[in-house]
Amino acid sequence: MMQMEKTEGRAGGERRIKLTDDLLWGIHPVTAALEEEASRITEIILQKDKKGGKWEKLIELGRARGVKLSFVSSLRLTGPESAQVRHQGIVARTSSTVLMPFAELVEKFAARVRKGEHPRLVVCDSLQDPHNLGAVIRSAHASGCSGVVLTRERSAPLGGTAAKASAGAISHIDISQVTNLAESLKQLKEAGAWVFGAVKDSSAQSVFTTDFALPACIVVGGEGQGIRPLVRKQCDILVSIPMVGTLDSLNSSVAAAVIMFEILRQTMYQKQ
Amino acid sequence: MMQMEKTEGRAGGERRIKLTDDLLWGIHPVTAALEEEASRITEIILQKDKKGGKWEKLIELGRARGVKLSFVSSLRLTGPESAQVRHQGIVARTSSTVLMPFAELVEKFAARVRKGEHPRLVVCDSLQDPHNLGAVIRSAHASGCSGVVLTRERSAPLGGTAAKASAGAISHIDISQVTNLAESLKQLKEAGAWVFGAVKDSSAQSVFTTDFALPACIVVGGEGQGIRPLVRKQCDILVSIPMVGTLDSLNSSVAAAVIMFEILRQTMYQKQ
Repeated sequence: MMQMEKTEGRAGGERRIKLTDDLLWGIHPVTAALEEEASRITEIILQKDKKGGKWEKLIELGRARGVKLSFVSSLRLTGPESAQVRHQGIVARTSSTVLMPFAELVEKFAARVRKGEHPRLVVCDSLQDPHNLGAVIRSAHASGCSGVVLTRERSAPLGGTAAKASAGAISHIDISQVTNLAESLKQLKEAGAWVFGAVKDSSAQSVFTTDFALPACIVVGGEGQGIRPLVRKQCDILVSIPMVGTLDSLNSSVAAAVIMFEILRQTMYQKQ
Repeated sequence: MMQMEKTEGRAGGERRIKLTDDLLWGIHPVTAALEEEASRITEIILQKDKKGGKWEKLIELGRARGVKLSFVSSLRLTGPESAQVRHQGIVARTSSTVLMPFAELVEKFAARVRKGEHPRLVVCDSLQDPHNLGAVIRSAHASGCSGVVLTRERSAPLGGTAAKASAGAISHIDISQVTNLAESLKQLKEAGAWVFGAVKDSSAQSVFTTDFALPACIVVGGEGQGIRPLVRKQCDILVSIPMVGTLDSLNSSVAAAVIMFEILRQTMYQKQ
């Protein structure tokens, strides 16, 4: 943040902002964040030439929620990653993502288990790519998972890139970060969860023949390394996605989605 | 390549291109490449002020071979080595991926249909994100698709980023680029394919209740816009992935993977 404030400036009406992880950009992600957790947004900077219904709605919503709106003649992001960013003329500064305390996430899970429900969580063990992390959060929400658990170490930041890749889902799902994932999985098991570890060993059970009609945590590993050994030890069942061809693995976010939607399929079409 | 995609741009009609290993330049080298291995050329960028017989011949040849031609008012190479390069107003992007002529891909498909098999293709309509394109190719290969068809326009380049995201799959699967996708789908239908269009309309049939035990082309659209109307008209069946939650779509590569692996699941576990 210090860094950002130093390099930021105004030049000839243009607002230059250094791309950092506390930024959100794009009309849809900013609107979604305003709708869901306006309290996280400290400022919205937008180009004054933007017209149209979506923009009017956003401005109205921002005013209604008491968020500071700054209108600029043009907006430019700076910094090494900024060329990849299409900000669409709008950037929001956020305070750090509102995370749910892990104990609260466990208690919500346990409460649903006590009601006889089958809540689902996705657990990301050291997912370092922010695009993949955002895509996992998006798929988790769309497939009916109630929450996502992340490792605090070696995990992509929950900032602009992950938020944008999540297409707003980051504001719609419970997210907790944990320091000791193996220990956290023990707590989830005590709360009634069955822990499924997604691995690429062909000796593991096929996800397509696994009955997921249980309160479930799906653990997915990071790109390349997979689930770490101590985390793997906490898995009740190891599952893998059948594959043909010459490759031995899938993109992490793709693998997570294939499993999550297989569970959704079973939920929808195999109920008695 | 990552670098190239970041720093490339258009400014006042000028096209700036970072000099990278996948470029060819100069009228003679580009003409020779068109004559010898046009399937490796993904785009030719040339200044529109160039006149004369050699240029006319090159343009004619490029059109005959179906290579994308981009005319610009001026062309500038950037990067440390670029000062030494005399590009003569023409640059060609090449792909290390050898593309299969579409007619050959159709014939391979038809041959398998004649043998009573159910080959599968993935068709990407204007998939502009190279990470997503690479991930689709990776999932297509891993789920047993025999090929991938791409639109020539508004498609991410099959260069470093897509190749890297494909984790090598780009070299293991047949890939064709086509100019007129609606027309190409007609040809595939004549070859025995059923064309399934992936859409987000909840009125479309669920992918989980669709019987894919047919020679199949799965058409997926680009980020945001989805399948274009003329392409959609060629689809025999529109399918959608059931979703819960507040979002209305999935990441393109995730949606493609969920469908491809649902087809693999049906292939493996629903055979009589």
